[in-house]
Amino acid sequence: MTKQKFTPIEKIGRSGLIEKISKQFEKHEDNLIYGIGDDAAVVKPATAEHQLLTSELFTEGVDFDLTYTPLQHLGFKLVSLCVSDIYAMNGKPDFLLVNLGLTNKISLEMTETLYQGIKSACSAYGIKLAGGDIGAATGALTISMTISGHSDNTVYRSGAKDGDAICVTGDLGGAACGLMVLLREKKHFDSSGKYSMKPELEPFEYVVRRQLVPEARFDLIDALSAQKLVPSSMTDLTKGLNKDLLAVCEANNLGAMIYEAAVPVNPSTRFAADELEEDIDKFVLFGGEEPEIMFTLPEKKVEEFATHFKDFVVIGRMREKAHGVKMQTAEGHTMTLH
Amino acid sequence: MTKQKFTPIEKIGRSGLIEKISKQFEKHEDNLIYGIGDDAAVVKPATAEHQLLTSELFTEGVDFDLTYTPLQHLGFKLVSLCVSDIYAMNGKPDFLLVNLGLTNKISLEMTETLYQGIKSACSAYGIKLAGGDIGAATGALTISMTISGHSDNTVYRSGAKDGDAICVTGDLGGAACGLMVLLREKKHFDSSGKYSMKPELEPFEYVVRRQLVPEARFDLIDALSAQKLVPSSMTDLTKGLNKDLLAVCEANNLGAMIYEAAVPVNPSTRFAADELEEDIDKFVLFGGEEPEIMFTLPEKKVEEFATHFKDFVVIGRMREKAHGVKMQTAEGHTMTLH
Repeated sequence: MTKQKFTPIEKIGRSGLIEKISKQFEKHEDNLIYGIGDDAAVVKPATAEHQLLTSELFTEGVDFDLTYTPLQHLGFKLVSLCVSDIYAMNGKPDFLLVNLGLTNKISLEMTETLYQGIKSACSAYGIKLAGGDIGAATGALTISMTISGHSDNTVYRSGAKDGDAICVTGDLGGAACGLMVLLREKKHFDSSGKYSMKPELEPFEYVVRRQLVPEARFDLIDALSAQKLVPSSMTDLTKGLNKDLLAVCEANNLGAMIYEAAVPVNPSTRFAADELEEDIDKFVLFGGEEPEIMFTLPEKKVEEFATHFKDFVVIGRMREKAHGVKMQTAEGHTMTLH
Repeated sequence: MTKQKFTPIEKIGRSGLIEKISKQFEKHEDNLIYGIGDDAAVVKPATAEHQLLTSELFTEGVDFDLTYTPLQHLGFKLVSLCVSDIYAMNGKPDFLLVNLGLTNKISLEMTETLYQGIKSACSAYGIKLAGGDIGAATGALTISMTISGHSDNTVYRSGAKDGDAICVTGDLGGAACGLMVLLREKKHFDSSGKYSMKPELEPFEYVVRRQLVPEARFDLIDALSAQKLVPSSMTDLTKGLNKDLLAVCEANNLGAMIYEAAVPVNPSTRFAADELEEDIDKFVLFGGEEPEIMFTLPEKKVEEFATHFKDFVVIGRMREKAHGVKMQTAEGHTMTLH
C-alpha cells in the first residue's frame, strides 16, 4: 500500500484550492461563456423547447462510504447518478455545478482525485463544469451536484397508456450486489487489521464496478433521438425497480404486470448473489443506485426500435389501475408490489 | 416558551415529506412547466442573452447555528445570499432548487418552517421553487441551493477602468455585528440555564435583523435596468469588503483607494459596536454575509444615477495596479489592504 501525500486544505486555503481545481477545467468553451471565477456562471441559454434542472445532495456515511469507495470513482458515480435524471426526461445535459463541504480528513490531493473522476464523467457525458462552491463541513464529506440540460421532446413519468410495453435498459441488481460485496470486504478488513490481505474482488469485478462506476444511459437517448421515437413515459431506476415502477404507475393512474423471468440480470450478478447466498430478486427489486432507464412504448413500436437499439428488454405491460402493480415470479406465482 | 410539536421525519417518510412540501409551491406557473415531482424540473429556457447559474452549500455549525437562528429566517437568509450572486452579475433570478440533508434532530414541523422562509424569499425575489432533493445527513443539517437566472447585460467582476468610482449599496458591518450580539446572547443563555430570561435584543434589533434576515438588492438591478445603465464591474459583499475589493482589483489588474469615512455604516450598527466595545472597522472590512452590491461606474455617470437610485455611496476610486489596494482611515492615515 503506497501512502498518498496529505496536504491539509488550510495550507492552500479555499481560494487557492478553487484556483487549483478551476485550472483543470475550461473557463470559456462553446456555450460556456464564463465558468468558475465570478459570482455566478454565465452560459448561453438552451435553444431547445425546454430547459431541465436537477440537483442532488450526497452525504458521507449516508450515500457513500469512503472506506471502500475510491474518490475518483465517487466523482464519476455521483455525476452519473445526477445526469441520469436528465436522461430520464429524454434530455441532454449541458452544465454541472459542484458544491463541496470538506471535512479536515480530506486533503488537497484527495480533492484533486475526486475532481479527476468528475472530469472523466464530464467528458463521458459531454458536460461542462460551470461552477459551484467549496466550503467546510463538520463530520461528513458533503457533495451537492446540479445539472442543467435541455430537451426538445421531454418525456415525463406520466404519459404511459394501458397496454404499453415496459422496457428496461441494461441489467439490474448489480450495484446492490456490489455494495454487499464491498460491505463484506470492509467487515473482513476491519476485523483482520489494516495490512492483512488484498481484498479478493476479482470474481466480483462486474458487480463492484456496477456499484462504484455506474454509467448513465446517454446511448438510449441518442438512439431514441436518431429514430425520432418518443417514449410514452420515462424514469431512471436509481431508487430500485419496485419503487420506480410504483411511482410510474401512480403518475399514470395505472397498474402494471411485470415478469420476473424477463427482468434483465447479468450472469456475473447472478453468480455473485449465489456466492453471497443472497436472493437475487432482493437486489433486482429493491437495489437501486443504477442509472438504467425504464421507459414505456406502444406495443407496435417495440420491435422496430429493437432493430436499432439492442440493450433493452420488455419486462411487462402497463395495465388498468384496478389490476394493481404485480409481478409474476419465475415459478408462476403472482405477487403484488407495494 | 411554547414547545413545538416534534414529528420525526421517519414517521411521514421522505416521499411523504416531499409531497407535503411540494403542495406549498406551484407545480406549473408561467415559465415553470413542471416543478417538483419528476426526475428533473422542466422550465422554459431564458430568452435573454445569458443564462446565469449559481450554487452554494451551507452547513450547520459552519455557516449557521440553529441555537440562535430561527428556521424561517434561515430559509429566507440562504435564498438571499444565493440570489445575491445573480444580482451581482446584473441578472434576474428565475428558479431555485433546494437540497436538504436532514439530521434526526430536524422534525417535520421544523422542515415546514424552513420552507416557509424559503417561500417568503421566493416571493420577495420573484423566484419559483423548481425542485431539489431531500435526504439524510449525519451530524449537521446541510442545505444546498442553486439558482438559475438570466441577463441581457451581464456584468463581471472585471471590466472596471482606472478612475472608476467604487460604489456600495446599503450599509456594511451590520450582519457581523449582529452575529456577535447573538453569540454573546448564546453564551449568556448557555451559562445561565435554559429558561432564565428573554434575551435583551431590542437595542440591537437592526444588527440582529441584518444577520438573520438580510435582503438582497434587486432594487439596484431594477434601477440600473430602468436607467439603461450598465456598471463597469460588479460583485456582492458576502465575503466582506476587504476580500471582495481585493478580488475585484485582481480581476481587473488594478489597484484602488477607498476612504474609511465614506464607507456606509448604519448608526444602529455603530451604536451596537460601541456597546460591544468592538472596533466597527473590523465588522465593516471583514464581516461579510451582507448581500449588498459593490459596483464601479465611470465618474461622470455617478451623479445622474444618484438622482434615480438613492441607496448607494461612492467609497473610493479604482487606481493603477502600482498604487496597490489602500484605505485612507478616518484619521488620515493610509493603510494597505491584503
